[in-house]
This record gives sequence, structure tokens and C-alpha cells, in this order.
Amino acid sequence: MYSYAQKNTNELKKIKKELLESYTSYKMQNLKLDMSRGKPCIEQLDLSNDILKIDISDYKTDLRNYGGLDGIIEIKELFGSILNLSTDEIIVGGNSSLSLMYDTFIRAMYLGVSGGNPWTKNEKVKFLCPSPGYDRHFSICELLGIEMISIDLLENGPDMDRVRELVENDETIKGMWCVPKYSNPTGIIYSDTVIREIANLKPKAENFRLFWDNAYMVHDLEDNSSEILNILDECKKVGNEDMVYIFASTSKVTFAGAGISIIAASKNNVKYIKNQLSIKTIGSDKVNQYRHYKFLNSFENIKLHMKKHAMIIKPKFDKVIEILNMQLKNLGIATWTNPKGGYFISFDSYDGCAKKIIKMALDAGLKMTEAGATFPYKNDPNDKNIRIAPTFPSLDELEKAMDLFCICVKISSIDKLIENN
Amino acid sequence: MYSYAQKNTNELKKIKKELLESYTSYKMQNLKLDMSRGKPCIEQLDLSNDILKIDISDYKTDLRNYGGLDGIIEIKELFGSILNLSTDEIIVGGNSSLSLMYDTFIRAMYLGVSGGNPWTKNEKVKFLCPSPGYDRHFSICELLGIEMISIDLLENGPDMDRVRELVENDETIKGMWCVPKYSNPTGIIYSDTVIREIANLKPKAENFRLFWDNAYMVHDLEDNSSEILNILDECKKVGNEDMVYIFASTSKVTFAGAGISIIAASKNNVKYIKNQLSIKTIGSDKVNQYRHYKFLNSFENIKLHMKKHAMIIKPKFDKVIEILNMQLKNLGIATWTNPKGGYFISFDSYDGCAKKIIKMALDAGLKMTEAGATFPYKNDPNDKNIRIAPTFPSLDELEKAMDLFCICVKISSIDKLIENN
Repeated sequence: MYSYAQKNTNELKKIKKELLESYTSYKMQNLKLDMSRGKPCIEQLDLSNDILKIDISDYKTDLRNYGGLDGIIEIKELFGSILNLSTDEIIVGGNSSLSLMYDTFIRAMYLGVSGGNPWTKNEKVKFLCPSPGYDRHFSICELLGIEMISIDLLENGPDMDRVRELVENDETIKGMWCVPKYSNPTGIIYSDTVIREIANLKPKAENFRLFWDNAYMVHDLEDNSSEILNILDECKKVGNEDMVYIFASTSKVTFAGAGISIIAASKNNVKYIKNQLSIKTIGSDKVNQYRHYKFLNSFENIKLHMKKHAMIIKPKFDKVIEILNMQLKNLGIATWTNPKGGYFISFDSYDGCAKKIIKMALDAGLKMTEAGATFPYKNDPNDKNIRIAPTFPSLDELEKAMDLFCICVKISSIDKLIENN
Repeated sequence: MYSYAQKNTNELKKIKKELLESYTSYKMQNLKLDMSRGKPCIEQLDLSNDILKIDISDYKTDLRNYGGLDGIIEIKELFGSILNLSTDEIIVGGNSSLSLMYDTFIRAMYLGVSGGNPWTKNEKVKFLCPSPGYDRHFSICELLGIEMISIDLLENGPDMDRVRELVENDETIKGMWCVPKYSNPTGIIYSDTVIREIANLKPKAENFRLFWDNAYMVHDLEDNSSEILNILDECKKVGNEDMVYIFASTSKVTFAGAGISIIAASKNNVKYIKNQLSIKTIGSDKVNQYRHYKFLNSFENIKLHMKKHAMIIKPKFDKVIEILNMQLKNLGIATWTNPKGGYFISFDSYDGCAKKIIKMALDAGLKMTEAGATFPYKNDPNDKNIRIAPTFPSLDELEKAMDLFCICVKISSIDKLIENN
């Protein structure tokens, strides 16, 4: 197979004609495939069904009643053992870590952070957004009118030279989004060096905060887990311990819609947050917390549980990679990641093709994540990044979806090449 | 028994001496009684234990996965049947209606309401607080730096002459807290006339909103339930349908810490809220929602369920009233309510005595709601209102607690009388 770039316009037109026939036949199948979000599949959810039957009546206090603003101690211990944090550095939330992040953002913006003013004391508020990144992170900034500054997300984390230059000279930059392990969507893992550089930042803004979304802390696809440095520890070493909020959840461990979440931070931050939080709620659902504790039980047990997840979804990642290799390798029209964990494969087409590919796929019944979604303001400057979410569809559906996807990629690439010839 | 006011100083001193002996003997018992919050008791929580065992696998979609921003239709139908609302006027939340209120406040303050600016577009934001009222409502305002204006809560609702005068002439007044049925703590019920007057307000502020906390919608202590007018209907009649947010929950129907909550509003408001809400969360816990639906099932069934609650807590209300009558009636030193529902008895001492009573009770091991808590800024202008929460303690504990409480009331009243003589 030769790369498309080596072919002349006539050859390309001929290939396109055949591809269009395949595309049309897909269109006639009235497919309804959805690869738009990082959703666990039914088999994954089934792994945790026992949680629904757990008896909670043996707990030492009445879980059914009011109380327990920061959650039950057992859940704090459990997350503490995974993230190497002490229980007084953790607050347990409800079924959504996204909500915790949103709430934390709101408090920082309008009410203030421990030892610092509300961000809105500055007329302009800016936030660093390593990209490609998680669309829901960026949407929070957009809703709140925060100016997002895109930072290149490299192999080992954000471009730290750029981060330092901005953070240490601009008081209006109030924080940075980070998905340090199996980053959404590129799957990269922040290196020790990068994490230490982040911990060592000397922000101009006294109320600067890292939003450290450890969404995939135990979500390995391979046997040897990729450990990352404990950001809070690294921050403590240099007296920066109030600079970071850590988030995690069981959304992709137990149930995506009915799990539990945590926010972790320095004792100082936790005390400050609890004070504000006590005005909003009397506490999250402790019944579900204790159920989770009894089901998950220990870090060791969680690791075993996550291996069962991997057994279900690793073949799906492999299938996607296999089809991409088979269909697109050597054509010189795209690159893609092969992550060791997390929920996504990140795909880069020719510049200026992503929107068209997503549109073509959608027209043929395959819903993918919106093009541009992985960048601030949904604006991919090169219109090339596409997030592939392989976990939810069955292997059969996935095969069909990826075959169709590759057809769309090829057609769009040919159009681009002909246009440029 | 003669009223204390008819006695001379020497007589009063003699009575006080005896009372102090009783008080001291209570003190020596090292009591630990808590009547500070409106918490259901264990027997009430037990009424809903079946909810914990309900199988949710028969639902038509996968409740365990992401999705369902506004909740499952069955819960919307259920609350709709209680509150006489349509399903597209309801959004289902998590385990805390307080959180829904806080979030709604935050959005109104900083992000804007349907068809109106964020409240903070005005330099000052004011809010009407019928008092005595619910301390957690006032705490939200206080946290957000909103100026609270206390409005007298009369027998049939807020003093509407005052409300109208303020709301219709001051653009910076952005809303009013309302607990329309069995108001916390006075237990009063808004009359039809007052509700119509509220619905007919013509606020100067185009972004004015009622926060209508129907916390005790089905929480009757007597057989004949006290119905209130549907505020949304009344608002619709005069084209004011966007003016109200309604809140309700099952916190005191099923589990105080693990129930479900709703916000209801005009279709227009609901659409606007869902749009903002989609940035914060992918949806609340649907597993718990469906469990609640299967357990509660219908309005008729809920009424039967609430009768069981009443059978448990009515004797506690009766006991409090009985002891107050026995100990304090005809002494001319206090008045109290005898509510037909809700969670509280509101008690008024002599002016200037409430703080002292609460302090004395606490010193002897009885924790009551903080004095002043029922007013904005925790500042009861007359220092006389005390909220009594009879539901949580056992009847025995309640008897002891109220006897001690009455001793504290008597001593404080005598001190006040002597001081004034």
C-alpha cells in the first residue's frame, strides 16, 4: 500500500469512487451506532451488580439519616489507600465528580479559596487548558466566562515552558486543568518530571489552583499499571500544598450514573471547603457510600475488579487499533494513539478534515464525539483531532463503526489532497 | 397557678431557688439530649427499609449508566401527581433539596435566570426572608453576601403589604424565601389569599424569583391534610409563570440522607435550567430514583406512608404540647404553636430570654437549635424565638428534655422579671 500523497489526482479519484460506493452501502443500512461518549458497556456495569444487594444495616451509625458532610471514614480510607492521602485530606461527594469540579470552580470564582480572594476579584479570569483535553472541563470554563488558554499537551504532560511563562507572569491566570493519568483523550501519562515541575510552579496569582482530575487512577488496560507521582506530596515538599484540588470517582469502577466521587486537597483546603460546603448540603448519600465500601473493600480488591474491566474493554481497544492499522497504516493520512489505560483513543487526521469526517460518519448513522470538542471553545485550530470511545459498543458494532469511520477518513483525505494538488 | 408577672420579687426569688435545685439535679445527670435539628427518628426511617432491597433490573433503560439529566419519568410523574405539575415542569435532583436551592441561587446570582440578567448585575442584591424562618435558607443568602430583609411571617403567610411595597419598588430585591405549608418553624400554612397575592406580585426586578420550598408537602400530623394552592398555576393565571422555583424532596418521606429531590418550574425555566445544569452533571442517581418510584409508587400510597410517619411523631408533638401546657400555661411567660404538620413547634419566650434559655439547656446537656437561628443573620430582634424539634428523641427523652427546657424558661423569665422590677 502506498501513501495517498504519492498518488496523482486520477488515481485518487478512482479510489474515492470505490470508497463512495462502500459509504453509500453503509448509509443504506440505517445504522445507529454511538461512539460519542466514554460510557462503560453493559458487561462492565454487570461486574458491580452485587453492590445493589448489599445490606447496610450493620453500620455503626444510621446511614439513612442526615449528617456526615464529608462522607463516611471507610470511603475516605479506601480512596486514601489508592491515592496515598490521609482521611482528613478527603471529602466524599455524590454520584458525579464533574459536579464536584463545577462546585469547586464556582466557589473559587465567587466565594474565594483558602487564603485567597474569589477569582472574580480580578476583572478577567484565565485558565490553562492542556489540549486536546476533556470537553466537559472546558465547558465549565466557557459557562463561567473564563478565558481559556490552550496549552499543547505533549507526550509527558503539558508544555511546561509555556505553562511556567504564563502562570508565573500573569496574575489573572487562576489555574490549570490536568488529567494526569491516561489523559482524555490522548491517553498520555504525566511524567515524574512534569508533575514535579507543576508542583514547583510559582504562580503570580496567590489563589491559583490546579484542577487535578484523576479520572482514570486505576483504569489500566495492561497488567503493569502506570503509577504517577502523588501531586499533593510533591506540592507539600515545596510548600505549595494549597495549590491543588484532586478529583476521582468510581463512575468507571462501579456504576457510571450511581457511583461515588471525592475531592481531595490539603487539610487547610479541606477545612475551608467543608465550611463553605456546609451551607450547600448536609452531606452526600451515605447509603451508597457504605455499599461501595463493602463491595470494593480494599485497594487490592479494586485492582482485581479493574482487571475484569480490562478483560472486557481491552479487546475493544485492540479491535479499533487493529482496524486502523489494517485500513489506514502506511496511507500517511492519519495518526492515532495506543493507550495503556483510560477510555479513549485519540485520532489525528489531515489538517482540516476532522469536522468533515465526523459529519460523514453521522450522516451514515455513526455518532462520534463532536469535532473540536477536545479543544477550548470547541475550536480545534487544525481541525484534525477526533476522540474515539471504544468501550460502549459491542465488538461487532465496533468493527462496523470503525470500518465506516476509516472510509470517511479516506474520502475526506482524498478530497483534501485533490484540493491541494 | 398565677402568672409570674403578678408575683413580687421575693416570691419570684423563692420560686427560682427551687427551680435552680431541679436544674442542678438535671446537670448532675450528664444528659446528652439533642433536639437541635428536624431529624426523623429511627422508627420513621425503618418505615422505608424495603427501599434498600428493591430490584432495579426490570427498568426499560440501563439505570446504572450515564444519562438522564432531568431524572426518570416515573419520579417526575410521581411528584407531578402530588404537586399537580406536568412532567416537563420537573427536574429530579440528588439526595438534597438544599443543594438544589443553593445551586439555583448560585445560577441566579452569577449566570442569570431565564429571560433575565444575573442578579449580580445589580451592585446590591436583596432578598426577602419571612421570619421566623429556616436557618439554612438564610445561611445561603449570608454566604453569598445577599442583604436579607426580614418580613413578618403572620398567621396566613408573609406580611403581604410590606412584601408588595418592597418588591414593587426596589429593583435590587431579587426574590423571597417561602415555606408555604407547615412553615419552618411556626407551622403556619399560607392561605389561598396570600398565595394569590404572591402570584400577583409585580416585581420591579425582571429577574425576581420566589424560592418556594414545599418541604412539608405531604407531612401532615392529622388526618385532614391542609391543601395549599398550586403556586405555579396561580402564577400562570397572571402571566407570572417564570417567577417561581418550587422545591420538594423525600428526605422526610423515605431517608433524610438518601432520598431524592426535585426542582419544579415553568417549562421555560426548566428548559433554561437544564441547559445550565448540563455543564455541571450528566444526571443524578437514577438507581435511587427508580427504587423510590417502586417503593412509593403513587400519591395514594405516599399518603398512607405519611400516616405511618404521623402515628410515630404525632405523640411526640402531643407530648411537647402537653408538657408546655402543664408547666408553663397561665404563667404568662411564653407562647407556642400547635402545628398540624411539619417538623417543628415554635416557641416564644419573654423578649430577651431565648439565648439565655438555650445556653442554660446546653449547659445541662440539652442541645436545642441555636437562639436567633430562625432570623436573618441569626439575629432575632427580640431574642425570644426558639425552635423545638420533637421528632428525633424517644418519648422518654422528650419528656426529660422538655421538663428541663421548661425549668430553663422559668428561671430566665424570673431573672428578667426581677431585672425589670
